[in-house]
Parts: sequence; structure tokens; C-alpha cells
Amino acid sequence: MSLSRREIMGASAVAVAASMAAPPLRAAAPQTGQQAPGFYRYRVGSIEITVVNDGVSRMPIGEGFVENASKDQINAALEAAFLEKDFYAGPYNPIVINTGTKVALVDTGTGEAAFKASKGLNGRLLPISLAAAGFDANAIDAVIISHYHLDHIDGLLKADGSLAFPNAEILVPAAEHNFWMDDGEMSRATKPRVVFGFKNVRRVMSAEVLKRIRTYEWNKEVIPGVTAIATPGHTPGHTSHVIASGGKAVYAQADVTHAPFLFARHPDWHFMLDVDPVAAEATRRKVYDMLVADKMLVQGFHYPFPAVGHVEKSGTGYREVLVNWSATV
Amino acid sequence: MSLSRREIMGASAVAVAASMAAPPLRAAAPQTGQQAPGFYRYRVGSIEITVVNDGVSRMPIGEGFVENASKDQINAALEAAFLEKDFYAGPYNPIVINTGTKVALVDTGTGEAAFKASKGLNGRLLPISLAAAGFDANAIDAVIISHYHLDHIDGLLKADGSLAFPNAEILVPAAEHNFWMDDGEMSRATKPRVVFGFKNVRRVMSAEVLKRIRTYEWNKEVIPGVTAIATPGHTPGHTSHVIASGGKAVYAQADVTHAPFLFARHPDWHFMLDVDPVAAEATRRKVYDMLVADKMLVQGFHYPFPAVGHVEKSGTGYREVLVNWSATV
Repeated sequence: MSLSRREIMGASAVAVAASMAAPPLRAAAPQTGQQAPGFYRYRVGSIEITVVNDGVSRMPIGEGFVENASKDQINAALEAAFLEKDFYAGPYNPIVINTGTKVALVDTGTGEAAFKASKGLNGRLLPISLAAAGFDANAIDAVIISHYHLDHIDGLLKADGSLAFPNAEILVPAAEHNFWMDDGEMSRATKPRVVFGFKNVRRVMSAEVLKRIRTYEWNKEVIPGVTAIATPGHTPGHTSHVIASGGKAVYAQADVTHAPFLFARHPDWHFMLDVDPVAAEATRRKVYDMLVADKMLVQGFHYPFPAVGHVEKSGTGYREVLVNWSATV
Repeated sequence: MSLSRREIMGASAVAVAASMAAPPLRAAAPQTGQQAPGFYRYRVGSIEITVVNDGVSRMPIGEGFVENASKDQINAALEAAFLEKDFYAGPYNPIVINTGTKVALVDTGTGEAAFKASKGLNGRLLPISLAAAGFDANAIDAVIISHYHLDHIDGLLKADGSLAFPNAEILVPAAEHNFWMDDGEMSRATKPRVVFGFKNVRRVMSAEVLKRIRTYEWNKEVIPGVTAIATPGHTPGHTSHVIASGGKAVYAQADVTHAPFLFARHPDWHFMLDVDPVAAEATRRKVYDMLVADKMLVQGFHYPFPAVGHVEKSGTGYREVLVNWSATV
């Protein structure tokens, strides 16, 4: 039995050389280079949830990506997760909640405009994933926003500035809206936060968008079956959503942890996009301790697609265990 | 911040009651109940691999499912993996290897006939997954078989007994073919192994199939880029395949471990379908120690879809870490 990688690759090389004598043919089916559609469905009681992938970013990790961890520490975490070093490959996963009476999209992805502005992002697959899952943009009754970072709100608009979901009411956390629309807060913010945060929010919050906005409060239902939960820190009004039906529930955590292979494993790490990293860490620990204790299903915006699973304790942090892919809904 | 599951569900119930006053409407898009197509593509050098899911079985776990573990121990393993107790939900994942000059399907799934015979299986999604991935059955140039269990060979035939892949050469491990076609071996086998093994093999090995069979040897190339590796135990001729190109490789392990959430975590467990469980365990430990040491990519037939990832040490066993879903190939 030949089992070392070296022996295997050696045997393979010999065999490849031997096969060179055979005349090359073209396969009956071409290589396509096309990935499968990025959607996944599951049920919570009578509610049907569809995860709709907006792509995966690939950005070089620069200084300050994690405020209190070195690049070596980050690379060690990437290596432990069998991921490429020096790069952040970040998944983006909005969801569609179909209650039977309402079709609500939670968060909108990076959008076309943001994609063009930030070369590092290769998101904006949401329209493709929605179409593959059978959703017309006009059929979205509501867009529920968790917080005002660009990868969650920029997809509200098409590249030409028109509404991406023209029939949708836009439901936003009151605390989040108030923070980012406050000129006093903007005047005290760092320059990147002004450019990518406050100014971007003002660009997206066009007259057309503002007309459709309804703010919602924590601990209340946003739409039937979907309750807003306060999880501030990442942003001041950052909100998670519990989707519940028939005694079942899933905790849609938005960015309580950003990519779990970094920030669930290391709940003490302070991500550069956290507005209040200390509050973000406290929220993260409380939420994750609850998820572990209650074995609660969790949906994570920056989890690897299909981005739904459970959480367990692991070392000094936590680890996500994605659900086994089901061939049925 | 209301964070316990009990509080969340309570808040949700109150909110649901409050929303009952609103008139019920029908959503603009119906719930579909339709899962996404079960395929996933990735590259190994110049080779394109497409994982094509054949479904997930759901079978009650009876006595003897694992020869040397109690039902309580099995349930504990299922619970640790956040899976339903008392049931084995087993994924089936053939792959298509497109080298550019050849399109080879590795293993064929449970097939229509086997599905009808074994009520517990809800596989036979392979034709649907192949079609979704753009493969016509006529475009399959070769079928490579890892071993002769029914979930690997029965898909060679349609329900009417005709060839499922009419243009394919059928490449089978010589040691495996010789064992299951040996009447002396059949005369010494247990009754279930005769019915579901030897007799099933004789049914599938029709004159049409036998005409297309070519046996292959271990440590040799099966098709260019694909080398057969001896991994006996699960069956006497059980074979894994290393797919290598451009200095990259993936180890397609077939059933070196059956479902990893049971048998990678517990490499000492003897699965009822192992013909020689002691040899199967020895093979499993050697292969998994190599996969861990070399951080080699592994594709597992009974891994959860997309069934490709890496392996790490975990407790007294191993644990699979599936790749993060990539939106590109």
C-alpha cells in the first residue's frame, strides 16, 4: 500500500509519463468553469428560508485588519482553517425569509456600485443567486437591514442609483439609522469611517430609499415570525434576528462574529470594522455562550455558504459546525 | 439585551400574537420546497472536478450498525455532530473528473433499481445532479468504480436494466471484481452479504456491462491523472484514487471512512458493511495519518456535500473540515 503523498505523487508522475503515448482526444463534454448556483433552502416551522450567496471577497490582509492580533497570528488562524495565508476570503450570505405571506430579504450584499468602488470585493452575485433561486426582484416585499455597513446596504441600489427591490418596504434598526445619519457622529469619526461609513450611508439613503424606510425597535417583531435582537458593538445599532415558527428557530446573527474561522475561534480579536470593539466582544461572547448552551441553529452573514449551522466551544473560543447539506428542503 | 433562547422565544410568541391583527396576505413569491442543484466544481491543476450529489439516505440505526459500539455511543456521536438521534442520514457523492480529454464518473450512486429495493435510501439524485451540472449521460467516457457496494455500482443501470452511461468504458479494480464474482467466496458469505453483495453484483454485471468492463491494477493510472491506490478492508478490492495535475492533488477516499461524523471521529468503529473491519481500520488510520501529516485535500463519497476538504486530528480520531464554498471554480 503506497500511502505517503511523496510516493503517491511519484507514482502519478510515472503513470502520467507512461500515458503520454496515448493520442490526445477532446472530452465529450467541455470543462465549464461555472460554479453551481449559490443558494440553499431550509425550513423553520412553516417559514422557508433561502440563503442567497453574494460571493466571496479576496482581500490582502493589511496592518490593522485585527487591531489586537499580529499578521502572524492571523496567518496561523488561516492555516489552522486550511485557508490561504495573507488573504481574507470573506463570504457574504444574505437570506430570503418566505413566511407564506411575506418575502423578506435580510441584507442586500455589496451591490454593483460598491463593487466598482472597492476592487477587492468580488461579491455582487446576489442578483444571480436570487434569480437561480426563483426570486424576481419585484417579488421582494421587504428588505430587513441588520446594520449600515456597505456589504449589507449597498445592494439596495442598482449601479444607476435606482431601487434594486422596487416593491420592498425597507426595514432598518432605529438605533442604527440614527447613528449613521447623525452629522455630529460623522464629525467625530475617523476618515475611513467617514468615507466608507457615513458618506456611503448618505449616498445609499437617497430620497427614493428614505421614502420606503420604516425603522424598527429591538425586542419587537420586524415582520411576523422575525424578532429584532439587540447585538450592538460591531455598529451601535447592529441587530440580529430570530426567525421562529412552530417551536423552531434560527438565530440570524449578522456580524456578531465576522468570518467565524477568524472571529469565532478568537472572540477576543477586535476587527477593524468594529465601531466599538469592546462592546462587540462582549456581545459576541454572550450570544455565542447562549448558542452553545441552547444548541441553537445560527445563520451567519459571513459564515461560509450555506452559512447555517451550530456552534460549539473550541479551545478558548468557538467553532461553527455547518449543517450537513440536505438534498430536500 | 434579551439573549436566552427562552426569552427570545417568549418575545417572539408575544410579537406573533400582536401581529395576528394584521390581515393575512399571500406572498408575491410562493414557497418552493425545492433544494438547489447538488453539484459543486473545483480544479486540481488542469483537471476540473464536479461533485454530483446522489442524495442523502435516512435509515433507522438498528443493532449491529456498528459492530463494536452501542446505540448509545452512536447517538452520542450523532448528538456531538448536531444530528438527529437514532437515524443515519448518509450522504452519497460521486464525482466527475474532466481532464479535458476524458470525462470520467467515479462511482454511480444507488441507482433507480436499488432505490426501489431498499426503502430506506432516498438517493438516485445523480441523474438530476449530472443534468444540472451540464453533463449528458452520453458524454461520460468512463465510469471508474471504487468498490462493488450497491451505492457505488447500482447506478450503472437504469431501472429497465439498460446502461445508464451507454458510451462509457467501465473501469473496475481487478481485486474487487475477482472477489465478488467468485462463487467460492459467495458460498462462504453471510446471508445479507450474499443478497446485497454477491447477488446484487451478479445482477448489475449484465452481459452488456461485462462487455464494457476493463479491470485496473493498484498503483497504476486508471485514466491520465488518476492513480489507483490500494485501500482494502471495507471490501477486499476497495480502491481510492489520487487525482493529480500541475503539482496539485486530491485524494478521493471512497469509503476509507464511511460517514466521517461517525467513522473519522471513531476510526476504531467497525461498520457493519466492512468485509474485513480490522483491515478497514488499519487502512483508515494509515490514510488519515497521511492526510493529516501532508495536509492533503480529500474527497469523501459519504462526506456531507460538497464532500471535499481537509482532515485534522480530533480527540482520539479525526475530523473533516470541508472547504469553504467558493463562488468561482
